[in-house]
This record gives sequence, structure tokens and C-alpha cells, in this order.
Amino acid sequence: MCQSVPVTLDPRAAVCVLGTGLIGGSLLRAAVAAGYEAFGYNRSESGIEAARRDGFDVSGELSAVLRRAAAADALLVLAVPMPAVGRLLAEIAVHAPWCPLTDVVSIKVPVADAVREQGLQAGYVGGHPMTGTSESGWAATDPELFRDAVWAVGVDEGTRVEPWLRVVRLALDCGSVVVPVVAEEHDRAVARISHLPHVLAEALAAAGAAGGELALGLAAGSFRDGTRVAGTAPDLVRAICEPNATALERVLDETIDALVAARDALRADGTLGELVEAGYRGRTAYEGRSQWDITGIAPGVGDWLADLHRAGQQGGVLRAL
Amino acid sequence: MCQSVPVTLDPRAAVCVLGTGLIGGSLLRAAVAAGYEAFGYNRSESGIEAARRDGFDVSGELSAVLRRAAAADALLVLAVPMPAVGRLLAEIAVHAPWCPLTDVVSIKVPVADAVREQGLQAGYVGGHPMTGTSESGWAATDPELFRDAVWAVGVDEGTRVEPWLRVVRLALDCGSVVVPVVAEEHDRAVARISHLPHVLAEALAAAGAAGGELALGLAAGSFRDGTRVAGTAPDLVRAICEPNATALERVLDETIDALVAARDALRADGTLGELVEAGYRGRTAYEGRSQWDITGIAPGVGDWLADLHRAGQQGGVLRAL
Repeated sequence: MCQSVPVTLDPRAAVCVLGTGLIGGSLLRAAVAAGYEAFGYNRSESGIEAARRDGFDVSGELSAVLRRAAAADALLVLAVPMPAVGRLLAEIAVHAPWCPLTDVVSIKVPVADAVREQGLQAGYVGGHPMTGTSESGWAATDPELFRDAVWAVGVDEGTRVEPWLRVVRLALDCGSVVVPVVAEEHDRAVARISHLPHVLAEALAAAGAAGGELALGLAAGSFRDGTRVAGTAPDLVRAICEPNATALERVLDETIDALVAARDALRADGTLGELVEAGYRGRTAYEGRSQWDITGIAPGVGDWLADLHRAGQQGGVLRAL
Repeated sequence: MCQSVPVTLDPRAAVCVLGTGLIGGSLLRAAVAAGYEAFGYNRSESGIEAARRDGFDVSGELSAVLRRAAAADALLVLAVPMPAVGRLLAEIAVHAPWCPLTDVVSIKVPVADAVREQGLQAGYVGGHPMTGTSESGWAATDPELFRDAVWAVGVDEGTRVEPWLRVVRLALDCGSVVVPVVAEEHDRAVARISHLPHVLAEALAAAGAAGGELALGLAAGSFRDGTRVAGTAPDLVRAICEPNATALERVLDETIDALVAARDALRADGTLGELVEAGYRGRTAYEGRSQWDITGIAPGVGDWLADLHRAGQQGGVLRAL
């Protein structure tokens, strides 16, 4: 469908990844594997050395990296935890303000706000590949991390088609499918399916360990899977969840209410009440979700942002441009 | 160490599995694979036919199966959900009251109570292999289901050594390691590491689905793993969790308090408070649990039950007799 778009895009245009931890480092590897000229910045010396040992072009000189990105018209990818985003954006505003810009941060409204504060919104398109492991750092990077993953890409009002196409192309080239989404709805959705799972995993892990050696010794698949993400470094969990406090608080309220109702039903009549059927219906809906292909919407033409937004709300995905 | 026990045991003595669903059917397969004479009973005609098609000796004639078990001095294994236990025990009391008896039910106090009601406690040893899948029925059975699993085996006061050795031998022959445990402590532990995971998975699945197609479309590994057991048939989840209402209620209280504290901290200062560190410590303790080998306790000799009980509390396992 991109034949109808009046822009020329080199699909191998440069990519500059800012932050080469698990997600950013994996993206650098995936971009190189897909044929992009890709280079990166990392703050920690050990991370830089690890990436260089594997043959990747990573430097700790932020302003130099950004000037190189500006000269190459590289797509900048912010790949740092939310608390580090502001500092990077301030440097980008100085050294590479005209580059197309995206991010892989787990929430979208606070990033968009920070982008606007630096006046960088014209080239910005929010992004969030829904993937990861409980590991972190360069050692855990994997160029296949994005294969068959879902990559949320922003279609907020005012999004420009040129950077949008750059971001979508990169996501597709990394093997992901793209879900078009606006920032507020993204943040509310990930509170439910990413941040709440973290919080419940922490609560479950704590409750299991409170049962001592015997309880942990008896633990099997349900505990192992239910606590997997509690193995993530606490600082990273906080950096992922806490910036989405408002949406997370709301879904935590809902979940606490559901658990209180189950607890009260257990007390009253020895049953778990409505919870089991509601959960089963939810899991069944998840397993049966359709991920239907979005077609017939030409990026940059007509109401393309609103049309993509609506398609994403209804479970549609982009598998090709 | 069983050389010191004054009993002769044929390790291939018969095993009679009552209920050939996921766990019972897998046990029948595993026992046959380990060289036991093993046969079973199942209530549903379709389950019987499926087992027979695979060459297993399963019948729907309960009294005949039990009389055959009595004649063979078979180890009876109750492998039905808790609500069906009483009916089976009543039949056992009539047709096979002298057989050694165990079970694979997910809680131990209610089964022990039901066993006592039928006067069958002399030959009874509680059991609970900590394994399963979200599937059910014969089609999901797997002789390797117990490989490297933990199998809780009762060491309650009054347990006799002959049936105890039969149960432990079967568990080991199926590839499991044995954790010795008393009924009350088992039930409190599984509330934490088996029943709470079910309840939280249901709550998470319901919260995710409440976010509609967009949320389910963005869901990735943390949601998938955190809701896996919510795919279990609701009746089975109820049959597993609800008979342990008292212990589950207590751990749900604890968990609700932890979630309320996290929610309140989010509201007050935008952090998740203590929860993330507590969860990380819990998951780390789980990953680092030792499963050290219990040695030097001779079954049937001295304070063997109390010694095994203490060892199990401290994370010890039996890997051999």
C-alpha cells in the first residue's frame, strides 16, 4: 500500500539506538541483521565494551553519536528506562533535533510529554515492542527478540507519515507485527497486560516465600510461571510500572475488588464466586484473539491516523507496508 | 536404607488407579512404564474407551475393580477431584478395606478426614504430585508428567511404614522426588504456591480481557505466563482450590493487604512501595531453593516420621529409598 505514499524511503536508512540494554541492544542487533546501518550509544563502559566485542558500533560519546545521527538522517530510538528519557531528549534537542525519533519505552504519555517539552514532537512517533525477558544488559540481547512480537506504534493526532513509516518499517524488518495505538489507550492497556502482571507476580512471589522452604520446595509450574517476571531487577520493574501510576492504580483497584469479592465468597460459602469463570473467559478471549490484518489504509492519505487507530482498537495488526 | 526395614516389598506390586483423568491417567501410564501391574477405574465411558484404545486396563465397574485390587493387594490411588473422594472411599470400605491407600488430590486434610470417616486410616498415606497442565482428560495424559516433579507424601502421626514405602516407591519410580509433609502444613503451603497462583491468574486474565481487543492484542509474555493456569476448566479450578478455603482465605488476606499497600503507595508517592523488593526476594529464594537430599533416616525405625517431617520443612527431599 505504500506505493500510494508520496515519499521516498530508503528502507536501509540509518538507525541510531540510544541505550543498548536488553531491548536497545537486541534492536541494534536486529537492525544490523536486517541490513540497516545501525549504531548506538550506551552510558556504561562495560555495556559499550560488551557490544564492541560482539562487533557492534557503540560509543559512550553522546553528543558525537547524535551529530553522526543528524548527518546520516538516522532514525533515533530512545531505549532507556523512563527516568533517563528527559536527559537524552535534552541532548537530542541540541545535537539532532531534525532526526525522526521513536522510543521503546514501556509507556507512551510520559514520553510524549517529555518529547513535547523539548519541542521534538514533529519527528516523533511512539513505539513499544511488547517483548522482553527477566534478564537485562547486553549479555541478554538477542536479534530474534522481536520475531513474531507485537510492536505498538503511535498513531496519535499530528503524527507525520515520514517518521511513522520509518518506525513501522523497522518494526516489520525486525520480525514484529505492528499494532497502531494512541498514547493514552496504550498506557491504559499495558497497565492491564504488562504492569499488573508484574505487580501480581511480585505479590505471588512474596506470598510463596512467606511459606518458607516447604512451600518453595512444593512449588511447581503455576508458581514458577506466575512469578517469572518477579525475577526482573527491582529497579527495572519500578522504572517500567511506576511512570504509569494513574492507569496502574485504576486497574489495581479493580483487581483488589475482584480478590476481595473472591475472599468474601470463600468466607461466606466456601466458593470463589464469579472470579474463576471471569478468569477463564478472559484467558479464552486471549487465546482466541484474532490479530486480523489491517488492509486498505494508505499511510499519509485521508484519515489514515484515525482509521489505523480504530483498526488497532479492534485487534487489527499491520504485517506489511 | 530400606534394608533396615523389616518388610518385604515387591516393587512391582500392583497399582490400582481410581480416576484416569490427567493425573490418574498419567500415573497409570507411568506405573506401567515402570514395570508395575497397573489397572484402573474411570467413571466416564469416553475416558475408559480412550484409555483402552491406548492399550490400558481401565474399567467402569468400580466394585469389580476394587475386588480385583483387594485380591492383588494393590496400592489404591485416589485420583479424582475432592468432591468425588467420599463416594469412592465408601466403595473402598466395602470392597477393598485392607489395601494400602494413597491419593493424588490437591489438598490433604479433607482427604484424611474422609478416609477416617470410612475407617480406612490404617492403610492410608496422603500424596500429592506437584504437577499438571491446564489440559484435562485422558487425551492429555503423559507418562513423563511426574519426571523431576516434587511428590508430597504424608508423614502424619500414625502413618504405617508398609503403605508409606509403597507410595514413596511408586513416586520415585515415576521419576519424582519426594517431599515428606504433614497434612495441615501441606495445605497451608499449597494455598501459597498452587491455589493462590490460580486465583491471581484468574484475576489477571479477567483484568486483561476487560481492556478489550487492544489490551489482549498487546499482551505478551508476562500476561501469557501469568494467566496460563486460568485456562484450566473452571470446575477443576474450583475443585482444586475451594476445599482449601481456610488456608486460601488467609493467604488471600495477606495478598490483598500487600496489593492495597502497593496501590496506596502509588497514590501517595507514585511508587510501588515495598512490594517489588519483597517479590524479587521471594523469586530469588524460589530459584535458589536447595532440595537437599534427606539421608540417614530409616523408614519405620525410631522417630522416622518426626525426623522426615522436620527434614521436609527444611527443604529436604528423598531421591531414593
